[in-house]
Amino acid sequence: MPADEFDVIRSLFAPLATHAGARGLADDAAVITVDGDLVVTTDAIVEGVHFRGDDPIETVAKKALRVNLSDLAAKGAKPAGALLTLIWPNQRPSDEMAAFARGLAEDLERYDVALWGGDTTATTGPLTVSITAFGLPLCERVPARADAKPGDDVWVTGSIGDAWLGFETLEGRWPDAAEACRTCAIARYQTPEPRVAFAEIVARYANASIDVSDGLAADAAKIATASGVALRIEAETIPLSEVARAWRAAHAGYGRLLDWGDDYEILFTAGREHRAAIETGALAVGVAAKRIGAVQAGAGARVLGADGAPMVLGGHAHRLGR
Amino acid sequence: MPADEFDVIRSLFAPLATHAGARGLADDAAVITVDGDLVVTTDAIVEGVHFRGDDPIETVAKKALRVNLSDLAAKGAKPAGALLTLIWPNQRPSDEMAAFARGLAEDLERYDVALWGGDTTATTGPLTVSITAFGLPLCERVPARADAKPGDDVWVTGSIGDAWLGFETLEGRWPDAAEACRTCAIARYQTPEPRVAFAEIVARYANASIDVSDGLAADAAKIATASGVALRIEAETIPLSEVARAWRAAHAGYGRLLDWGDDYEILFTAGREHRAAIETGALAVGVAAKRIGAVQAGAGARVLGADGAPMVLGGHAHRLGR
Repeated sequence: MPADEFDVIRSLFAPLATHAGARGLADDAAVITVDGDLVVTTDAIVEGVHFRGDDPIETVAKKALRVNLSDLAAKGAKPAGALLTLIWPNQRPSDEMAAFARGLAEDLERYDVALWGGDTTATTGPLTVSITAFGLPLCERVPARADAKPGDDVWVTGSIGDAWLGFETLEGRWPDAAEACRTCAIARYQTPEPRVAFAEIVARYANASIDVSDGLAADAAKIATASGVALRIEAETIPLSEVARAWRAAHAGYGRLLDWGDDYEILFTAGREHRAAIETGALAVGVAAKRIGAVQAGAGARVLGADGAPMVLGGHAHRLGR
Repeated sequence: MPADEFDVIRSLFAPLATHAGARGLADDAAVITVDGDLVVTTDAIVEGVHFRGDDPIETVAKKALRVNLSDLAAKGAKPAGALLTLIWPNQRPSDEMAAFARGLAEDLERYDVALWGGDTTATTGPLTVSITAFGLPLCERVPARADAKPGDDVWVTGSIGDAWLGFETLEGRWPDAAEACRTCAIARYQTPEPRVAFAEIVARYANASIDVSDGLAADAAKIATASGVALRIEAETIPLSEVARAWRAAHAGYGRLLDWGDDYEILFTAGREHRAAIETGALAVGVAAKRIGAVQAGAGARVLGADGAPMVLGGHAHRLGR
């Protein structure tokens, strides 16, 4: 990193920090005023683990922010502000830092998030971006992972599996994909779409919720464990995009569609009495939501195949470093 | 990292997350309730840049927290909570993670800080610890870097230069140091003492303040720039520990005592009318504070040697990676 930390912050990121409490990033800390509950989350992404070294640098900035906004959406919270910790490799061209800042600026505006502060430092290792994001709850109650109840429906937003196909495409393992499929799938991998608009539906109706980052099966299991219940999911009902359906048409089985992760959809449970309201709400905010199973007494999460037998699924496998 | 993220969090860090809003770290986000201003800061430390690869792992955990608590103290805020992002090298023995958690637990208790959440991930690069810390202002106003006024005194807490001597000792460049000096200096480098108790003095009397991390000269220059004033500091008045005086007795000049950084002292300016109150307050909280110069009209920070001529000082040089 040729320029020193102070110069980098001032020239690239200070213009993004327009919130008064950010003090133009020219202070040791930010000061924010809160009246009530604040939802706080932090997620880091590491080159070679959560993104590829040759992913466009603007998309790295966006992904770092979006994976955090996805957590806020899953908690029924509206994004408010973020802190950026940028750990920049000595070997990476510093002119990419301007493109990183540009990508971040676009998404801060797109999702109406204020940059409140941050830190930049050099590393001998891979590019690492750690973001802390702050949100305001849209309802009084912030849905936990621990509140699923037997009898609840299990729902998921959007579609599952596209990020894996994007990764497969980039790795050259889906050479016969149509061009449109390639583009869509890569976009889902590099710039996942956090379901920010759906946060108000979650806030109103979800008992338990989580964002799908480690794979649908693994994240369903987290709800099951935290809630002390069992989740039964029917594989055939899991929403797949056109891209994933195209992949399935050319391959046997599901591959890693259901357990590779990086989907950044919202998996949640809700009482059956809210079915109509959730469907109407989903239409109103323009994010698809689909029922994929039920909460039962018991333990663990099972995804049942078309034959009714539990599928053997993993999770976390999208971590390149493993 | 042999164990998966979820297991690591649950077994090591969840017991530290006793605050209800942390949800036992078993959720996507923490929920904290705030009534008024929240001071928020984030600082990352990277192996080979901010600490040495062979520093005891407990001290790495402590240093990561303490550099953030130092920022809060410089803003006159009492620590409340923290988020930990732990980016663990694939190659580092995972049993060190328990020692890391132990070191962190000791300091969370020592400084009365709640662990509100975090993230763990693997890396092919160096150990990296990013912490976001939250504090509550002890007075209504949170001192900025930008509020130094001509006529103010310049003050600094504790003593300057010991961290550099600790680093020199670890690098084998101060072989003739007395054993007591070695021990003290290394402790200042590995486990700096954030001036948490002094925060209330800063909150009450400081116009501008900053924590000394990048070197006294560089950090004084940041106050000067942010405030649009000049800082004049007399080198002879800068407080040195016994260790630093021992080093000076055996060497010519100051070496990097005044500009190497990592001191984590508080540098602040205050009106002359507060001299007596600051001295009394410092005694009461048990943290030394010393007047080392004055704020004047003009620009930049100068440290004047015994001959009255400005010394040539750097900053940031403690970054090993540079």
